[in-house]
Amino acid sequence: MPPKATLKTVGIISRPRREQLFAVIPPLLQWLEARGVHALYDGETASSLDQPSTARTRQELADESDLLLVLGGDGTLLAAARVAAPRGIPILPVNMGSLGFLTSFTLEEMFPALEEALAGRPSVSERVMLGVELYRGVHVIDGQRVLNEAAINKGALARMIELELKIDGTFVCRYRSDGLIVATPTGSTAYSLSAGGPIVHPSVESLIITPICPHTLSDRPLVVRDSSSVEVSLSGDAESVFLTLDGQKGIPMQSGDRVRIGRAPELLKLIQPPRKSYFDILRSKLKWGEA
Amino acid sequence: MPPKATLKTVGIISRPRREQLFAVIPPLLQWLEARGVHALYDGETASSLDQPSTARTRQELADESDLLLVLGGDGTLLAAARVAAPRGIPILPVNMGSLGFLTSFTLEEMFPALEEALAGRPSVSERVMLGVELYRGVHVIDGQRVLNEAAINKGALARMIELELKIDGTFVCRYRSDGLIVATPTGSTAYSLSAGGPIVHPSVESLIITPICPHTLSDRPLVVRDSSSVEVSLSGDAESVFLTLDGQKGIPMQSGDRVRIGRAPELLKLIQPPRKSYFDILRSKLKWGEA
Amino acid sequence: MPPKATLKTVGIISRPRREQLFAVIPPLLQWLEARGVHALYDGETASSLDQPSTARTRQELADESDLLLVLGGDGTLLAAARVAAPRGIPILPVNMGSLGFLTSFTLEEMFPALEEALAGRPSVSERVMLGVELYRGVHVIDGQRVLNEAAINKGALARMIELELKIDGTFVCRYRSDGLIVATPTGSTAYSLSAGGPIVHPSVESLIITPICPHTLSDRPLVVRDSSSVEVSLSGDAESVFLTLDGQKGIPMQSGDRVRIGRAPELLKLIQPPRKSYFDILRSKLKWGEA
Amino acid sequence: MPPKATLKTVGIISRPRREQLFAVIPPLLQWLEARGVHALYDGETASSLDQPSTARTRQELADESDLLLVLGGDGTLLAAARVAAPRGIPILPVNMGSLGFLTSFTLEEMFPALEEALAGRPSVSERVMLGVELYRGVHVIDGQRVLNEAAINKGALARMIELELKIDGTFVCRYRSDGLIVATPTGSTAYSLSAGGPIVHPSVESLIITPICPHTLSDRPLVVRDSSSVEVSLSGDAESVFLTLDGQKGIPMQSGDRVRIGRAPELLKLIQPPRKSYFDILRSKLKWGEA
Repeated sequence: MPPKATLKTVGIISRPRREQLFAVIPPLLQWLEARGVHALYDGETASSLDQPSTARTRQELADESDLLLVLGGDGTLLAAARVAAPRGIPILPVNMGSLGFLTSFTLEEMFPALEEALAGRPSVSERVMLGVELYRGVHVIDGQRVLNEAAINKGALARMIELELKIDGTFVCRYRSDGLIVATPTGSTAYSLSAGGPIVHPSVESLIITPICPHTLSDRPLVVRDSSSVEVSLSGDAESVFLTLDGQKGIPMQSGDRVRIGRAPELLKLIQPPRKSYFDILRSKLKWGEA
Repeated sequence: MPPKATLKTVGIISRPRREQLFAVIPPLLQWLEARGVHALYDGETASSLDQPSTARTRQELADESDLLLVLGGDGTLLAAARVAAPRGIPILPVNMGSLGFLTSFTLEEMFPALEEALAGRPSVSERVMLGVELYRGVHVIDGQRVLNEAAINKGALARMIELELKIDGTFVCRYRSDGLIVATPTGSTAYSLSAGGPIVHPSVESLIITPICPHTLSDRPLVVRDSSSVEVSLSGDAESVFLTLDGQKGIPMQSGDRVRIGRAPELLKLIQPPRKSYFDILRSKLKWGEA
Repeated sequence: MPPKATLKTVGIISRPRREQLFAVIPPLLQWLEARGVHALYDGETASSLDQPSTARTRQELADESDLLLVLGGDGTLLAAARVAAPRGIPILPVNMGSLGFLTSFTLEEMFPALEEALAGRPSVSERVMLGVELYRGVHVIDGQRVLNEAAINKGALARMIELELKIDGTFVCRYRSDGLIVATPTGSTAYSLSAGGPIVHPSVESLIITPICPHTLSDRPLVVRDSSSVEVSLSGDAESVFLTLDGQKGIPMQSGDRVRIGRAPELLKLIQPPRKSYFDILRSKLKWGEA
Repeated sequence: MPPKATLKTVGIISRPRREQLFAVIPPLLQWLEARGVHALYDGETASSLDQPSTARTRQELADESDLLLVLGGDGTLLAAARVAAPRGIPILPVNMGSLGFLTSFTLEEMFPALEEALAGRPSVSERVMLGVELYRGVHVIDGQRVLNEAAINKGALARMIELELKIDGTFVCRYRSDGLIVATPTGSTAYSLSAGGPIVHPSVESLIITPICPHTLSDRPLVVRDSSSVEVSLSGDAESVFLTLDGQKGIPMQSGDRVRIGRAPELLKLIQPPRKSYFDILRSKLKWGEA
């Protein structure tokens, strides 16, 4: 008989890929039941079971579970992180396609990883998230937590945009560019890396500020302390400019808008394979260090 | 009495900045008349004279003039180039704001430069332009000549796009990126430079292919012969992707679309200050070579 | 009468530029004497006074002073930092040529800055230094503290070198390159920046690892926590390879040698102009944020 | 019976790797003899046959052969190119280790490639070489042809160097850097790529000028026409600076020395696999275009 788990409820969040879920979900539910663990799940998971009525929202899952099991890619995890972090519950990420930076367990590793987690021995990597708020005048128009980055981007047809960067109230510089990325170390291997930013280990308490296609040759990525308060203002003509949050939510910006970015109070508890180092994942994802 | 000019008709194209034009246009027309040169002008110029009915379209100006005088910035010149090049008439570019890469005469230098041009001694820099055609299936959806670049860009809210590059029918590579730029040497100091491309002297018969925020670390700018036929295909999900031409015209693209890019048959005749070298302009624009 | 200083002894270290010292040193000594402050100085300073016999070594100056006044450029300061940091005494850096990243007081600002320092109100920026040790087998061959960086470099005539990076004992990657730089945030604007590294604010507790001319396209600068223990091993044929410390001391390396780098126990207390921010200095040095 | 070859004499140049040569050379000589082709060889090849007395110098091989067969890596080929190009004889490059950019035939492909070459149907890629001359005052101190690049490098212990670039006698810019590379398109995938240069197709008639670790953020790689005359002068203090030619020959430089670089009159005839494109080799060498 399997040992009794110390965690009582696992919430399952799945990426929309029905084919694989058919095969994965039923044995997973059985496995959890055999250990006396209660399983809750989202709409995707429910419809793979043909039981849509049993679905819970992500918020409900986060409220009622002791652990979120995320079956999907980095995108699914970014969304799950927003509900998990404020409630302090860990995420166990299992990739269902190609290895992600964040979803670093394979399907074969899922049960051993769950075993460790249920026994209260998960290997947790704590990740900083950012709180992002969009100000128009004195009003907060919108806001959200992000695990990877907040990006200000011009539309495909727009001309370059003008941004002003302040850190802790002090003027830093102006950018004339296609945009600007403010990333966490976790996000340093995502969009910021594409734009030319450095790779920053998750343990470095920092924000990475990377311009997108800067029109000034001297602009370089900037790494500042994550206790800094970063403010980016949009000036000049600004038609078709967007604030995008973890690449998932886009909010139209107007000239004069300010984006304030700082470290969120809670950390994301991300369960990671105990025998793979951060650099192991980096090498395999980036084909790094190969000749 | 001023000498008789060898050129009979000068067409004037102005950038929408009425204030300066008020002061510039009347003495310019007088100066031309005194030399027996016929002056034609576009709508902007006409309205600065309060004579909107005398305006000609850019096409008409190009058809009826021996020289186009462009008063404006690089943007005004890019538009004028499209009508001037196919007809083989030279452009004399005068900047009305800050020095441009292309509009390298100041207002003070305008009359001496016109003097040289009218006397048949302009200092002409011949610039390659590209012919760009967008194919959907077997049909050409749209097309145009460009002096700087053709760029394929994703919208601000879209995910990265997948592109496949062929040169002279041979597969080169796939890009997963925010987009791709195919630039002339003239365009190498514009958008391509912002995206990390090299500076290419206008005399190098080449196209510069520069990815925008590539997701693969190993992608590098590529310089190929300008007699090459370049084909870029858009694959995968492709919502909100645009082909932009010289940053001025945007055409929505669909998955499966192909962009074919090659050297246009005609060169642009761009009049340049005889005593400033290409590198002089580069240094002053890029603050280049300063410590 | 000037107020009595809280600091009793100031040590003066000068860069070899006799002309300026002739004019600067005598009034400086008078100024200090008027405030009851004892002044000691190094050989350069002494010979500008034609009193070589009164000179002290840098070590002696650091042992006997409450503050080191460094008159010179960043190079002079790097050398002074090595004696000041272990003894916990602050450095007041005055540039005698062009503004340095570190020597950010001008000659005009020297007396006001001294005034503040003597009154016990210096504006101190604490900077992490690195301890660097070169191991051959089990023996430490050489070692030193650095303020900017430790670099492993091949000689001009040598072929590329092969390096292996471990962090906290875990294999990270192999480099085939011209060399590798491990920099402090203070050093991020020096050699590391030339090699393509990011700008890292001094408050970010981190090390920056930047390859020099890597032969692998996927190599990127890496930022890790400064509590990490970094080990770089030299493998393969390795003729003419050197470990250079703050660009001032070069130690020949052999194949198999290992360099161990970690945060030094003491911080450098660097006095900085209270009204210039880190980013002000950055902008003026890098011509940064200019269009 | 094999067909009679149209080429009468093949010269063999081998890289010092005796083990493999033992197995490769005897059947190669037999194969050539069977086709009535005379074989000559260098010292390495001769000593693998234990017949050192039959060795010829590279110069002699180039003088007496109709084709040079190079067994080795890119380094062996760079040396062979210097004797082959001035005499107009083609090189058939066979790699004996890992695939090189230049040595793109495998051992398995050697006999079919020889077959084609002997039948007068080689697939030849013509490659531009550079003539490089080092001037001290009015005297030429040294000079050589290169296939990849001429590089000016500081020694590992030296400080940065100051260089001035002129093109066709016109001042371009000053560099404060670790050095400067002037490469052919063939060399664009070698050292220049490591220093951040673009990939330039061999058919683009151009030189690529890439600074090594520039101290100025605004320095960018520059591509100019290969008919240009490039002059690089070394100024300032210059201890331990070297001109290196194809990474194989190093010549000490002094302050005031000038390096003049231009297209060599002859092209190298490099036999390439007819069914692999330039981009096929690029992709496999650079792991390019992989996600």
